Amino acid sequence: MEKQNPKINLAILGATGNVGRKFLEVLEERDFPVNNLSLLASEKSVGKKLKFKEKEYTVELAKKDSFKDINLVLASAGAKVSKELVPYALKAHTVVVDNSSAYRMEKDVPLVVAGVNDKDLKNHKGIIANPNCTTAQLMPPLKALHSLAGLKRVIVSTYQSASGAGKTAVDELTQQTKEYLSSGKYNSKAINRKFAFNVVPHIDDFVEDGYTKEEVKVINESRKILGLPNLRITCTAVRVPVFIGHSESVNVELEKSVTREQIVRTLRGMPNLIVMDDPVESPMAIDIAGKDPVYVGRIREDKSNPNTWNMWVVADNLRIGAALNAVRIAETLLKEDLIKVPAI
Amino acid sequence: MEKQNPKINLAILGATGNVGRKFLEVLEERDFPVNNLSLLASEKSVGKKLKFKEKEYTVELAKKDSFKDINLVLASAGAKVSKELVPYALKAHTVVVDNSSAYRMEKDVPLVVAGVNDKDLKNHKGIIANPNCTTAQLMPPLKALHSLAGLKRVIVSTYQSASGAGKTAVDELTQQTKEYLSSGKYNSKAINRKFAFNVVPHIDDFVEDGYTKEEVKVINESRKILGLPNLRITCTAVRVPVFIGHSESVNVELEKSVTREQIVRTLRGMPNLIVMDDPVESPMAIDIAGKDPVYVGRIREDKSNPNTWNMWVVADNLRIGAALNAVRIAETLLKEDLIKVPAI
Repeated sequence: MEKQNPKINLAILGATGNVGRKFLEVLEERDFPVNNLSLLASEKSVGKKLKFKEKEYTVELAKKDSFKDINLVLASAGAKVSKELVPYALKAHTVVVDNSSAYRMEKDVPLVVAGVNDKDLKNHKGIIANPNCTTAQLMPPLKALHSLAGLKRVIVSTYQSASGAGKTAVDELTQQTKEYLSSGKYNSKAINRKFAFNVVPHIDDFVEDGYTKEEVKVINESRKILGLPNLRITCTAVRVPVFIGHSESVNVELEKSVTREQIVRTLRGMPNLIVMDDPVESPMAIDIAGKDPVYVGRIREDKSNPNTWNMWVVADNLRIGAALNAVRIAETLLKEDLIKVPAI
Repeated sequence: MEKQNPKINLAILGATGNVGRKFLEVLEERDFPVNNLSLLASEKSVGKKLKFKEKEYTVELAKKDSFKDINLVLASAGAKVSKELVPYALKAHTVVVDNSSAYRMEKDVPLVVAGVNDKDLKNHKGIIANPNCTTAQLMPPLKALHSLAGLKRVIVSTYQSASGAGKTAVDELTQQTKEYLSSGKYNSKAINRKFAFNVVPHIDDFVEDGYTKEEVKVINESRKILGLPNLRITCTAVRVPVFIGHSESVNVELEKSVTREQIVRTLRGMPNLIVMDDPVESPMAIDIAGKDPVYVGRIREDKSNPNTWNMWVVADNLRIGAALNAVRIAETLLKEDLIKVPAI
């Protein structure tokens, strides 16, 4: 008799946020095998109703004893909530895939992009971290190029969408745009930056040496995911007035000389990566919003430096960068029997 | 007796375009010494009225014999018109400052950014070319850094505004934005790209090797202006939904080791360049539109490579990138007695 697929008791921590809702959408699309579903959030969202597979669920308060009999938590409630509640999930023997930055750089926590370093899941101690969205979409092409010819140096400039800053920023972009078109002025005050028809050259707080936390995440998380602790990489992270979809201008120096054809073929060999190789049909945020793959285009030699290539990487930051990657990780955990769940 | 300031007979070629109108604004602001003013344009603009210093001028047809008794032409009517008409201006002994790409890379034509390579004006043969806007704003910081420590390699990713693509693109951005906000769809057809709430990773046509003309201009024009024919430089040119103001993420490798303080001090020593050194107050397109200087911020060491620095360069592309630079060049030509005009 064939072993039945296990069905698991799943909790979503931060269920009502941008990514929380996207978790439900992606889980349903991919027919993830859910037995019981708990939707957990903070006080202000308790009692809200959300649908999953035709059934309505009521949001409950996320608290220390929320994890009894839960096999898996998909968490996206911010670093503070994760730091507070994840230890209680672990005590309840619950595996947590955490979308926050709380545990990403901890030694015992695998930081995983599905299809890039799934092997790291084997060593998990209960927490698996989902990287920052900006890092996540960069990893499939960099992994492919590293396998082909060795990464020597990477320079990234980003064009990040409002949705990366949460639902407030998306609403703010709409609001500011309308106000600016009608009055030529910025009246909104929810975020302290002029956002519509502008480019904001910093994301998240500043740290030492003038970098932002967002830029440091791209640098450190890339090194950890690729298993290259000394990877030479720098980043400039910039917000643009786009709703969904991060774009990245990437300059990659390789160790070895390869042809353009080899690069295209290698990228096409990566799962969930699409090369758009007609330059006029280069990937654009507006077209890829809502789609699963990472899109790479404008692959061209940087003739000013040996073995160096420019490319343009676009993905839906809410999917590859958050919900989709977490669900893919959960699928692998199930498939590889890395969640302790009974077959029912 | 002191020599009086010469007043010159000035023609604007392409007077009704985005840059043509900006010429008049800048000439008036700077009280440029104009004797007679001719506004020249194509058939469809003939008869339009434009104001300069309280006086109304009527647009005339630009033709071969438009340049009699004209001392100086400021041209911004596109490469095709410049190629057709500039030779007749030269025959009439008229000096032309040309904003088009028609003559930029010709050996005998100085390509000048005011304050960067004014010395090249001395050798002009009647035509002085104004660089592409994207190149123009990059030159003051690169010139300063080259003088300080030698440029070794430059990697630029741009965030270019709609106005760089002309008045049609600006109108299209407004129109598309309104349509998208009301219907979630793109209905406009004036340009064949989705522009609002999107990032378009190519500007102008494609040339060999997958680069765009815009990117090739940045590479070739930078080399010519800086007098560094072998400068190692690459560019990815990207359009963002901003009305006015180009932003550039620039990674610069220097020959010599210098401190951050030396870099900031050197940049501050450049004319028309402002360093905004508080990272939270980094330069943004929306704030610098309508202003004259080039703004540099987010200066930070790229620790992944020796002697390498990241920075963020923003300027009003219609001013430093076009009208203002042309007028500054004209002022220098007058001051250095490089236009043959009688003092009146």
